[in-house]
Amino acid sequence: MKLTSEQKKDIADQQAQENKTKRVTSLELEKILYEAIPALDHGFVRVIDYMGDDTSIVQSARVSYGKGTKKVSTDEGLIKYLMRHWHSTPFEMCEIKYHVKLPIFIARQWIRHRTANVNEYSARYSILDKEFYLPAEENLAAQSSSNRQGRGDVLAGEQAKEVLELLKNDAERTYNNYEMMLNERFDGSTIDENKKGLARELARMNLTLNTYTQWYWKTDLLNLMNFLRLRADSHAQYEIRVYADIMLDTVKRWVPITYDAFMDYRVGGTEVSAKGKVIIQKLIKGENVDIDNSDLSKREWNELMIAFDLKDKLI
Amino acid sequence: MKLTSEQKKDIADQQAQENKTKRVTSLELEKILYEAIPALDHGFVRVIDYMGDDTSIVQSARVSYGKGTKKVSTDEGLIKYLMRHWHSTPFEMCEIKYHVKLPIFIARQWIRHRTANVNEYSARYSILDKEFYLPAEENLAAQSSSNRQGRGDVLAGEQAKEVLELLKNDAERTYNNYEMMLNERFDGSTIDENKKGLARELARMNLTLNTYTQWYWKTDLLNLMNFLRLRADSHAQYEIRVYADIMLDTVKRWVPITYDAFMDYRVGGTEVSAKGKVIIQKLIKGENVDIDNSDLSKREWNELMIAFDLKDKLI
Amino acid sequence: MKLTSEQKKDIADQQAQENKTKRVTSLELEKILYEAIPALDHGFVRVIDYMGDDTSIVQSARVSYGKGTKKVSTDEGLIKYLMRHWHSTPFEMCEIKYHVKLPIFIARQWIRHRTANVNEYSARYSILDKEFYLPAEENLAAQSSSNRQGRGDVLAGEQAKEVLELLKNDAERTYNNYEMMLNERFDGSTIDENKKGLARELARMNLTLNTYTQWYWKTDLLNLMNFLRLRADSHAQYEIRVYADIMLDTVKRWVPITYDAFMDYRVGGTEVSAKGKVIIQKLIKGENVDIDNSDLSKREWNELMIAFDLKDKLI
Amino acid sequence: MKLTSEQKKDIADQQAQENKTKRVTSLELEKILYEAIPALDHGFVRVIDYMGDDTSIVQSARVSYGKGTKKVSTDEGLIKYLMRHWHSTPFEMCEIKYHVKLPIFIARQWIRHRTANVNEYSARYSILDKEFYLPAEENLAAQSSSNRQGRGDVLAGEQAKEVLELLKNDAERTYNNYEMMLNERFDGSTIDENKKGLARELARMNLTLNTYTQWYWKTDLLNLMNFLRLRADSHAQYEIRVYADIMLDTVKRWVPITYDAFMDYRVGGTEVSAKGKVIIQKLIKGENVDIDNSDLSKREWNELMIAFDLKDKLI
Repeated sequence: MKLTSEQKKDIADQQAQENKTKRVTSLELEKILYEAIPALDHGFVRVIDYMGDDTSIVQSARVSYGKGTKKVSTDEGLIKYLMRHWHSTPFEMCEIKYHVKLPIFIARQWIRHRTANVNEYSARYSILDKEFYLPAEENLAAQSSSNRQGRGDVLAGEQAKEVLELLKNDAERTYNNYEMMLNERFDGSTIDENKKGLARELARMNLTLNTYTQWYWKTDLLNLMNFLRLRADSHAQYEIRVYADIMLDTVKRWVPITYDAFMDYRVGGTEVSAKGKVIIQKLIKGENVDIDNSDLSKREWNELMIAFDLKDKLI
Repeated sequence: MKLTSEQKKDIADQQAQENKTKRVTSLELEKILYEAIPALDHGFVRVIDYMGDDTSIVQSARVSYGKGTKKVSTDEGLIKYLMRHWHSTPFEMCEIKYHVKLPIFIARQWIRHRTANVNEYSARYSILDKEFYLPAEENLAAQSSSNRQGRGDVLAGEQAKEVLELLKNDAERTYNNYEMMLNERFDGSTIDENKKGLARELARMNLTLNTYTQWYWKTDLLNLMNFLRLRADSHAQYEIRVYADIMLDTVKRWVPITYDAFMDYRVGGTEVSAKGKVIIQKLIKGENVDIDNSDLSKREWNELMIAFDLKDKLI
Repeated sequence: MKLTSEQKKDIADQQAQENKTKRVTSLELEKILYEAIPALDHGFVRVIDYMGDDTSIVQSARVSYGKGTKKVSTDEGLIKYLMRHWHSTPFEMCEIKYHVKLPIFIARQWIRHRTANVNEYSARYSILDKEFYLPAEENLAAQSSSNRQGRGDVLAGEQAKEVLELLKNDAERTYNNYEMMLNERFDGSTIDENKKGLARELARMNLTLNTYTQWYWKTDLLNLMNFLRLRADSHAQYEIRVYADIMLDTVKRWVPITYDAFMDYRVGGTEVSAKGKVIIQKLIKGENVDIDNSDLSKREWNELMIAFDLKDKLI
Repeated sequence: MKLTSEQKKDIADQQAQENKTKRVTSLELEKILYEAIPALDHGFVRVIDYMGDDTSIVQSARVSYGKGTKKVSTDEGLIKYLMRHWHSTPFEMCEIKYHVKLPIFIARQWIRHRTANVNEYSARYSILDKEFYLPAEENLAAQSSSNRQGRGDVLAGEQAKEVLELLKNDAERTYNNYEMMLNERFDGSTIDENKKGLARELARMNLTLNTYTQWYWKTDLLNLMNFLRLRADSHAQYEIRVYADIMLDTVKRWVPITYDAFMDYRVGGTEVSAKGKVIIQKLIKGENVDIDNSDLSKREWNELMIAFDLKDKLI
């Protein structure tokens, strides 16, 4: 991640602000406000603004005139209760805004979460940065043979090099041709004074999907947790998980009580179907269980056994 | 609007907060933060929290590393442009949270605006305040004969008194019976130690729609403007307009540049249909116009003439 | 539930339609289309329109050119998989529209589900029907002493009669005064030719919350299931559960495969937190478990034991 | 646009369905149901399903038991009124579902409209089709010098050829390398039996943004009109306008009365700001107007004059 000196100055200027406010503040989050936290090879996550903290959840759940309850322990009990029983609206009362730089193919996955506000850098107006995501060798996974959507083993040395070479060359060549068509380089200089440039809204179509873009993305805490639950999960694509993990850490700084409840009930928890419950109940009673009488598919059976760490029951 | 001494203390405690923050702040809005601004006879509007200011709109529209542009005049030009051309997402980057006390029949109108976050005081858990909206005499309008949805002249003295008497008596009687069914008074005291109380979720059904409720309501600036455009309009029901007018004033304090653009393009502006444009063009050329050749209905014709203050053309 | 003869005719006319369509249809749902299914004492649920069936979920999940897969068993496997892994967007591809008549206090609970389209009968334009919800005696529950939000035992005979008397009298009196203020009866007749009526948008505030209103409510299958999961649950208020149960039955007719998966994974299933999983694992291994070492609150502990039907572990 | 014979058969099979339904149907829309209407060089728009017609808007606006009103003229008057006064919820009562094939850079523009349901073809699971958008020569516009976002003149012959050559070669080369990395061709055949393929979720990053993707996209009529208002506008990017124009035609078939109102009030209409109204009023009175006294920027002034076709007033 390279920032220009102007970008660094812009960030430092904002960090130097010392405003007074009557609003609730999150000391731990303030410490990293505006900071560009590196993600992948050229991306970053920056927290730009936030509204509310743990007490705001309690305050709105109680529709109170004051701030949370008097005691932290009472706040904690209520937040855990709300999380456990899937209450949603109190968690919507906190809001956070990020500035994110990320590869386009990840941006396309991210944008599927619709309950958020987004302003993306416009390649109709401006030239995109000359930066492409190239995976580290240890992340060059083969297609999984068991999971149609996932990754399998890492590619062996020689093939890995070939892949990286292809990715690098194609990204550079298409970007160079993008500049050629625009008749303008990424630094703003003109290539051929006697030529017109192709419209930016057209030229961009030549770029590869690992080109970096950036956006402002703002959402409330409930929808952020919905995002993180899916994207910080071990089944999520590695490249989006890198961003989700960084954001998870910002949640920990911002609303630590909610973070703990989220980790316990959502991230670390599991769901058991009606049929699955019957199996677990039998297991507790020490009865024999058998997939044939379970009405579960093989896949479902294994998912249940893995959830409760019953590896000897896998089939 | 009466606040208990405990409520007053809760408000004062929050107003006494002096937190430091690196976030952008709105000085004018900070001045009235948490304050209960009276609305109707027992309601209020309180600004509880906010995120962003005018510069945040510019910042996200440009996806910039810093804060807005360097010059206020440039920010202003961009905000006006965005408003004029119905750009929406940059205005979503500012967020505000209100605590509102309002009659239930107004809450039902308000809640139709769905893109907002709401936590309402729960009458399943708690007993509602013993407060009902009673219109001032000058607002006791008769049903309009021309507009099926609106109000006509104010009712004459004697009838007005009768109406107010009915409203007051019915609200009080149904509230008293609500307490009776609950076997509990609004101050928490029990009525008859030997009786059980009816479940709160049931007893509330006996209350009239002018009973006050309250909620936390949070929305972004774009959706707030959509709300205000409809509800601060002269055709909106008077009782919701009172709230909208107060909120309009908070917008002026919070994001003054956006407020000006909003007043010019949305509130003070008008829309002209394709057919209407033909009429206006003829009028500018000094040609005769006539409803018969206009393809406009009488109603539409009059709406157009009123929009451009052409009262002699009304039919 | 009383329908006027005109309303009955309107319904019969629509049911008599025999249109040809190339769209997928749900035979079982067609059988009850437009029918007013009674709910509570004066309410109803009517299915007005729908889009898609089980095959539509598969079709969009596969982004296929044709209709679902070739085999029902494959469709079923995919729908179960999607439900189990919380895939959301394919279930949004089915849409349903209801016409519902319901008491206002239930409408207020219902409307908290925002991802839906609603058109409510306007009491600014029109006079509301003279119908109020009066609970059956067996539903006149006392406030629960253990659950602040719920119901306890049913009220004893004498008190129940008193409550019903109060509810009935107050609803009738306030409605009569509503007519008086409007100077118009619910059947449209004028009361006093020499008087003006109070504006409808004002007079309605005198009605009690058990007055019936009605609306068109349209939503997609995903959001309908979110609604039903909460509102057909045993902890939901009885009066909204009556509606949810009827709608659950329409889902069964409409998309039977999805219905089964929903009942298994959502309605009949349970969630286990990270801490709860540790307890369950110990129980399966036959180890002793004890709330003191569990890091669970008493409430949480009991919720877990109830979920797995371990009544001897309740404390 | 090439369809495989299997795809053609799938489409024909669906078109051959003759189901009976009591739902309202749109005869004109049924005629083109499932048909792949070509868009750009390899894309298409297919209407897959719909709910409601013009009468549904009236029905829900009135919360009626029957179907619309008795007379088409009454329905028309109401729909025009609703459109003119920005009523929104009745138009949400109609729903439509499309299957669209489109270049990725257009998909990214499209997806900014969030109030819709989407299922996109997954390049994590499956290999994308070997199809790229290459503009026709007459659409190879230069960057506009006046409008930072738009297009200017078409590129001259030689340069146009060069650009097309670059686009074509880069798309083909990156796609070939995509296959190489996957170790699998788009037709499913393996390239080298001794090699593993790179995970699909990674390999896709090598594709250019003019590669075609496809999705199911479902939205209600209100949000569709919001989409079309922006995307069928002359300022929209040509490539998305092609799709919007096709969809506009489907709206005309589906809900012809609403279509007419939409064209009159939204597409063909204009907005006038408070300041602009003053200018128009003066022009109607035959008074002199002058930008210096107008408080309008030059840009705003010209936009106003163009809206009313006053070309001699441009400055």
